[in-house]
Amino acid sequence: MPEQAVSRLERRKAGTRSALIRAAQTLIAAGRTNAPILEITQAADVGMGSFYNHFENREQLHRAALDAALEAQGALLDELTAGLEDPAHVFAQSFRLTGRLHRRQPALSKVLLHYGFALTTSDDGLAPRARRDIEAAVRDGRFTVRDPELALVTVAGAALSLGWLLHDQPERDDAATTDLVTEDVLRMLGLGAAEAHEICTRPLPDLDTTVGRLGAV
Amino acid sequence: MPEQAVSRLERRKAGTRSALIRAAQTLIAAGRTNAPILEITQAADVGMGSFYNHFENREQLHRAALDAALEAQGALLDELTAGLEDPAHVFAQSFRLTGRLHRRQPALSKVLLHYGFALTTSDDGLAPRARRDIEAAVRDGRFTVRDPELALVTVAGAALSLGWLLHDQPERDDAATTDLVTEDVLRMLGLGAAEAHEICTRPLPDLDTTVGRLGAV
Repeated sequence: MPEQAVSRLERRKAGTRSALIRAAQTLIAAGRTNAPILEITQAADVGMGSFYNHFENREQLHRAALDAALEAQGALLDELTAGLEDPAHVFAQSFRLTGRLHRRQPALSKVLLHYGFALTTSDDGLAPRARRDIEAAVRDGRFTVRDPELALVTVAGAALSLGWLLHDQPERDDAATTDLVTEDVLRMLGLGAAEAHEICTRPLPDLDTTVGRLGAV
Repeated sequence: MPEQAVSRLERRKAGTRSALIRAAQTLIAAGRTNAPILEITQAADVGMGSFYNHFENREQLHRAALDAALEAQGALLDELTAGLEDPAHVFAQSFRLTGRLHRRQPALSKVLLHYGFALTTSDDGLAPRARRDIEAAVRDGRFTVRDPELALVTVAGAALSLGWLLHDQPERDDAATTDLVTEDVLRMLGLGAAEAHEICTRPLPDLDTTVGRLGAV
């Protein structure tokens, strides 16, 4: 095949894979983790046969859908904290942005909440990034943490229950609620109350201009 | 019927109900929330027909199984903290005991973890007790919390992720791990680091002599 035709074929294959992943994310978010493969391919608007060109079974697709959600959110957070010097600020900003993403990206948020605690010891996505930030802040003497793995578990528990609350109580202000929880978490990590509060009042990068990309997994 | 016969009948009915609830707890703990009613009655060693003398459907039995688990654990914690004056100590002791119950009562623990965040805003069981203790500690000037409902969500997130971790990493010392997380949570609630540490080294009531009753829902 000429090179152009190959690349067209590759693009089409990648497009099919993305459509399947998006369909899986939508179904997981709706709690429909048992949806048959025929329904997934119909939701993705691709032929039933193409499913097996990309995935061996539904479980493998679910794993890919979760990885894509984690990577998309993790990469966004890395980008939106790239210019910050203080690792405590990096951690706080990521936590504050993550809280604000639950309602802006409800499907991705619900995929994460569906997997829940299993993510806290995962090697991909948000947990290793949070751990990296916590350990950097400990090295710089900003956080006081005796066991970073345990601190991560508590932080993840707070992050997950925050997401759950924001979906459960749609009348709650997500920004104010998130910032209060972030303050709590920062105190838990060893910051003083006044500094924890101050860090959570700092301006945040504009999510509206960047979050669009999260949809395009 | 003579009074004695009535009471015998009542006892037998209560026994059937308890057996169904225990069977449901065991199945939920094993992740088998879809088990058919025939299997539940077989596990409970009662006739299929008696199910409908007690519950309209499986969902109603599950709710009863969860309520029984929450009430049993909540009542045990109330009893084991009854003599304490300082509400911060009451809260800490309940949190430390709860962490130690996950492996001693794995079936009950997994029922709670299965329901997860939905429990944090429930009106029954552990969440209202934790909230009562947090609010008492705030009134006494022991905890510094601006929004008790939010504090409860973060505390519950930490408690649930701790339980998840203790099942996921069986080699972890559950007592030491629980006490570290409790210290973190106490700092988050406004205690100083030294006091948080000291409270978590205090002796605990003996769980081995009391926990047996939890099995007898």
